[in-house]
Amino acid sequence: MAKKVTIKDLAKAAGVSVTTVSQILNGKGARFSEETRDRVHRLKAELNYVPDFNARNLILHSSKTIGVLVPNIGNPFFSSFTRGIQEVCREKEYMPLVFSANHEVELERYYLSRLVERSVDGLIIASSTITNETIDEILKPNGIPYLLFDQNQAHGQGDRVAVDDYQGGKLAAEHLLKLGHKKLVMYLPEQPTENVLNRLAGFKNALNTAGVAFDETNIVKTEFTKQGGYKNTVAVLAKQPTAVFCANDELAIGLYRGLTERNIVVPRQISIIGFDDIDLDEYVTPALTTIHQPIQQLGNEAAKLIFKRLSDKEGKLSQQLVKMPVNLIERASTAQVEG
Amino acid sequence: MAKKVTIKDLAKAAGVSVTTVSQILNGKGARFSEETRDRVHRLKAELNYVPDFNARNLILHSSKTIGVLVPNIGNPFFSSFTRGIQEVCREKEYMPLVFSANHEVELERYYLSRLVERSVDGLIIASSTITNETIDEILKPNGIPYLLFDQNQAHGQGDRVAVDDYQGGKLAAEHLLKLGHKKLVMYLPEQPTENVLNRLAGFKNALNTAGVAFDETNIVKTEFTKQGGYKNTVAVLAKQPTAVFCANDELAIGLYRGLTERNIVVPRQISIIGFDDIDLDEYVTPALTTIHQPIQQLGNEAAKLIFKRLSDKEGKLSQQLVKMPVNLIERASTAQVEG
Repeated sequence: MAKKVTIKDLAKAAGVSVTTVSQILNGKGARFSEETRDRVHRLKAELNYVPDFNARNLILHSSKTIGVLVPNIGNPFFSSFTRGIQEVCREKEYMPLVFSANHEVELERYYLSRLVERSVDGLIIASSTITNETIDEILKPNGIPYLLFDQNQAHGQGDRVAVDDYQGGKLAAEHLLKLGHKKLVMYLPEQPTENVLNRLAGFKNALNTAGVAFDETNIVKTEFTKQGGYKNTVAVLAKQPTAVFCANDELAIGLYRGLTERNIVVPRQISIIGFDDIDLDEYVTPALTTIHQPIQQLGNEAAKLIFKRLSDKEGKLSQQLVKMPVNLIERASTAQVEG
Repeated sequence: MAKKVTIKDLAKAAGVSVTTVSQILNGKGARFSEETRDRVHRLKAELNYVPDFNARNLILHSSKTIGVLVPNIGNPFFSSFTRGIQEVCREKEYMPLVFSANHEVELERYYLSRLVERSVDGLIIASSTITNETIDEILKPNGIPYLLFDQNQAHGQGDRVAVDDYQGGKLAAEHLLKLGHKKLVMYLPEQPTENVLNRLAGFKNALNTAGVAFDETNIVKTEFTKQGGYKNTVAVLAKQPTAVFCANDELAIGLYRGLTERNIVVPRQISIIGFDDIDLDEYVTPALTTIHQPIQQLGNEAAKLIFKRLSDKEGKLSQQLVKMPVNLIERASTAQVEG
C-alpha cells in the first residue's frame, strides 16, 4: 500500500531541507531562489503532498472543526438543519463533524466526550436529551463554546437558536378553531423538551381563550419518531378527536399510516396538523398542513453564532439568543369539521 | 471563557512533573507511590482532564477516524447506511466522519481533500459522482484505504460492497409480468451509476426473455431525488405505462406526488415499484412495493471491510468484494393490470 507523502519525502525529492520546504510552503521562502521555490511548489503538486493537518492543529490550537450532535439524522428536519450548518462552515473553512445519537443518552455522552477529546472548536447540540450534568461535566471544564438548539431543561448559559414555538402552537389552534374543531388531541413525545412544551402551551392557551376545553386528558404521548406516531394511533382514536396537532411532522406521518390502515380518511374524518415543514410534507397523501420552521436557516444561524463566539477572543460577548418566526402552511390535511 | 484543562494544569495541581503525570496516565507509573498515582487519577477526574487526542494521533500515526462520503444524507437510505457504519466504528472506538456532498462533484472533491488532510484512517465512498481522476489524484498518492459503494464507472482497485442489483431488476420485472403488465417504464437518474445500470439490465433482460418489448423508448430520466421523481411525472405518463419501475424509492415517492395531483390512483390505474426499501415505504399511501436492500447491514459490512484492510499491515489482503442479496417486498402499490 502506498504511504501518505510526508514533508520529508518532498524535501528529499526537491533536494532541500525540511525546514526549507516548510518555510516555502508557509509563504516565508523569500530568501530562497525563485527556482527553488518553484521546484518545491511543483513537486508538492506532483507528489500530491498534503500537509498534516493534525500537526498544524497542535501548533495553531484549533482543529477547525465544529461538532454537531443531533438526535436523529433520519428525520429530514435534521438533515436540512445540518445542511445549513455545513454551508456556513464551508465559507469559514471549518469541517462540521455530525453525529446522530439516535435518541440515546448514553450514545450522546459518548460522542460528546470523543468530540471534546478531539479538540473541536465549538459544539452545536441539537439533541433533546442533554442534561445539565453533561454540560457541567463534559463541556464547561474544557471551555468549549457550545450552542443549544431544541433543548431540554438544560440551563441557559450557552448560546441558543430557537423558533417561536409558543406562537406556532397558537397558530395551529387558531387554524383548527377557524375550521370549527372543538374535540382536539395534541400528540406529544414521551419526554417533551422545552420547545415542545412551548408548542403545547401556545396551543392550549389559544384554545382556552376561545372557550374550548383542553387539558391533560387531551394529550397522547408516544416515542418521538414516525414509528412512534404510528404505534399509538389507537390511543389517539380512543379520544375521538376531530383534529390532532402533532408535535412534529414525523409523528403526523406515522399517524397517517395508522389511520390509512383503519380506512380513516384525512381530512374528511379527522384533520391533522404537524410542526416543522420537512420536505416530505408535500409528498405524503394528503399533503400535510403544518407550522413552518425555517430549518436550513436555523442551521445557518446556529453556525454563525458559534463563529461569532469563536472570534470573541476576549470573552466580551454576552449570551447570544436568536429566535426565528414560524408560520402556518395550509395544505390538504385539515378541513372544516363535519356535521 | 474557561480553557481546556491541559496536562500542565493537572501536573501543577498534583504537585508533580508533566512526565510523571504522563507516565501514570499511560499505565507506566509503577515506580511512583500509590498515593501519588491515586492523586493524579483523582485530580484527572476532578478537573475533567481530557488527553489531547490530536497529539496522541501524531504519535500513533492514526486519527482513529473513518471518513464517509454520501451523496445525500436527506435520503433515508443513507441515514440508515451511515448508522450501520456508526455501529461498527463504535465497537472499534473509531469515529465516523460523515459528509454529504449533495450530489455535487466539486463539494465531493472538497470534502475528500479535507478528510485526507486530516489523516483519516480509511474512507467509505458512497457517492455516485466520484471519478477515476479523483481517486488517482487524491486517494492513491496518500495511500489511504478506501471502499467504494454504489459506484460509478470508477475503476476497481478499492474494496467494494454492493447488492445484487441485476437480480433486483429481474425480480421487479417478474413481479410485474406475473400481474400481467406489458407497457412498462423504468424511471432512471440522469447519470445512472453502475449499480443502477445493473438494475436496468436485469429488468430489461427478464422482460425480453418473456417476449415483452422494452428498449430506450421505455426509459424516462430525471434528477435522482424525490423532487426529480415528482418533476418528470408528465414525461412518465406520456409513455402511457401500466407500471413503472423506479430506480430507487425516492423517485417512486416523488412520482406518487405527481400522480396524486393528477388524481391518478395507484395501483388501480398504474402500478409502481421502487428499489431500496427505506423505512418511509410503509408510511406512504399506498405502501410501496419495492426491492429490499439490507441497508444497515451494508453499512456494517462496509465498515468491517475497511477495518480488515486497516489491520492488514503487510498488504497481503487482495481486493475485498462483498455482494449481498436482495428480495421483493410486496406491498400495496402494485396490482393486476386492468382490462
